[in-house]
Amino acid sequence: MSSPAFATRSDILRIAQVAPLSESVPPKLYGGTERVVATLTDELVRQGHDVTLFASGDSRTMATLVAPVPRALRLAKCADPLALHLLLIEQIAQRADEFDVIHFHTAPLHFSIARRLQVPHVTTLHGRLDLPEVLTLYSEFTDLPLISVSDAQRDPLPLQNWIGTVHHGLPNRELQFRAAAGQYLAFLGRISPEKRVDRAIDIAKACGCPLKIAAKVDPVDQVYFERQIQPLLDHPLIEYLGEIGESEKGAFLGGATALLFPIDWPEPFGLVMIESLACGTPVVAIRGGSVPEILDHGVTGFVCDEVDEAIEATTRVHTLDRRACRRAFERRFTATRMAEEYIHLYRRLAADAVFADSLHAR
Amino acid sequence: MSSPAFATRSDILRIAQVAPLSESVPPKLYGGTERVVATLTDELVRQGHDVTLFASGDSRTMATLVAPVPRALRLAKCADPLALHLLLIEQIAQRADEFDVIHFHTAPLHFSIARRLQVPHVTTLHGRLDLPEVLTLYSEFTDLPLISVSDAQRDPLPLQNWIGTVHHGLPNRELQFRAAAGQYLAFLGRISPEKRVDRAIDIAKACGCPLKIAAKVDPVDQVYFERQIQPLLDHPLIEYLGEIGESEKGAFLGGATALLFPIDWPEPFGLVMIESLACGTPVVAIRGGSVPEILDHGVTGFVCDEVDEAIEATTRVHTLDRRACRRAFERRFTATRMAEEYIHLYRRLAADAVFADSLHAR
Repeated sequence: MSSPAFATRSDILRIAQVAPLSESVPPKLYGGTERVVATLTDELVRQGHDVTLFASGDSRTMATLVAPVPRALRLAKCADPLALHLLLIEQIAQRADEFDVIHFHTAPLHFSIARRLQVPHVTTLHGRLDLPEVLTLYSEFTDLPLISVSDAQRDPLPLQNWIGTVHHGLPNRELQFRAAAGQYLAFLGRISPEKRVDRAIDIAKACGCPLKIAAKVDPVDQVYFERQIQPLLDHPLIEYLGEIGESEKGAFLGGATALLFPIDWPEPFGLVMIESLACGTPVVAIRGGSVPEILDHGVTGFVCDEVDEAIEATTRVHTLDRRACRRAFERRFTATRMAEEYIHLYRRLAADAVFADSLHAR
Repeated sequence: MSSPAFATRSDILRIAQVAPLSESVPPKLYGGTERVVATLTDELVRQGHDVTLFASGDSRTMATLVAPVPRALRLAKCADPLALHLLLIEQIAQRADEFDVIHFHTAPLHFSIARRLQVPHVTTLHGRLDLPEVLTLYSEFTDLPLISVSDAQRDPLPLQNWIGTVHHGLPNRELQFRAAAGQYLAFLGRISPEKRVDRAIDIAKACGCPLKIAAKVDPVDQVYFERQIQPLLDHPLIEYLGEIGESEKGAFLGGATALLFPIDWPEPFGLVMIESLACGTPVVAIRGGSVPEILDHGVTGFVCDEVDEAIEATTRVHTLDRRACRRAFERRFTATRMAEEYIHLYRRLAADAVFADSLHAR
């Protein structure tokens, strides 16, 4: 049932992608949701569909851009982001009948409006779902079609109308494969309690292996960074690089023996794992959320239950075949595969809507 | 066209009041919006209407209470207030057809949903409206029926569908009239840059008159308080009482020569001014927002353009007739008057809806 790589005229879907306005699409710096929306949107266009992207005006896209605001809100230091997201939802609601399907990435702001649309729609959830207010709100919306980014993400909300899990994907050629392993361990992302860079430091020290840390510190995590992490950085094996740009990621990840991903929270997806695999670099991770779905234990990395196990795994991670990591990426985590899975779901939603209409008309 | 004090059977309106969930209705401590909703709701019930109040479960009301959450969110330290306000909007949307009119106090969260309701509705705006994101959002909703709490509040948004201004009111007997003026000046409310307690201190010192300050400090204003205000409090004429409860307000305001209200922002309404008038205490204010609408210059207080003028006014404020202040309150700012004005607007909205339906049916 997968759709062809290039749609024929009658197959073309008119698709709206509705992104948050916090970051541009793709983001200038950090911003997982907006990066995935950018990749998906361009790939849908490449596969021949008629795509309209609702996003901030500084976005770059192959689709038709509709911009409720000229600039992404976080870097513009907007004082009232909620007001402008409400404007976004109103604008897509007004234009809903121009599309065969509307794909929202703005949960839960659009839920009440989406439920009342006559047009097929679906929402991808990008965040963690195990917070009490989330459970209360979602129990009101068990009919709303949802897509999870990992099966594990659904655990706190088993009763929602899940219509599929679609793992994220990356453009095929964005990150280059590197056949030769480097001589250091890598940590990439955010410094925050749930990402546990302190564990990565412990693992590197126990293995006697250099660790390079490329990570941003959000304002909310500044005190944590200064009190808990900074004292650990003053060690000959540890090198802290600060935040790095997209263009530096390939060399940083590709040059590493392994990526350390010793998280301590229900990770919804974990884009950095598939970025690492794209470079051929295996991942030593601690179990949590999506991790066991993304990694093939013993093939593309090791899924460990505790730090001691991760230390032991790190000492032998160089024995894994880097080509197997790249192959896993190409098979499971490309933008093409992601877009095809979404198109499959869009067609199902559109067909269901036609069927429901025909019942109604009788 | 004003409605009777007690409705006959055919006059009874089924009214929904939709309050924010941040504070209970009425609020345990500070919370102007929730206090006005409480007063209005109980008065509508007293006037014979069938009222349903959507508010937190710890609210106390004569109406039927529908509570999406058991406790008000601010004091319960809720981590995701937005999620629960979205739940509130969904719940009222589902029950919309049970009412003749829905009165929202939750702007702008409900705008997109309200616009699509088949039931007459109106929104009272309680806050300032001169921020850039507000202008952007509201320009999308120029059809939505709105009520301002002062004419001045509308200034930044002249093109909205304003159907009326309704000044706030207080229960007739909540605050007792005191015929004898006290020997001190009063400042009551919040300590924040726009309320300018520093000006009140300057005025009191210049007049050689004692000033009692009863005010809370929000977390966001803590640094301002410590750096800018605390050093000014160490003076024999100045007494800082902290936050006081509702039950202490009457004695505090009634015992004063005058209330100082030397604001420096577009005040949407300023409840404390009418609380002061209810006690018979005149107000020395600096012009801004609603101030000239609420005070009768030279009768219930003085509306001044700068601090020097306010100092001069304070020296002769004892010459104003305290009975005239109370009379102005009884004539213009009671709960009864507020509820009657709202009922008049509700009936107009309901009649317009019937007329629109009849046009549609032809």
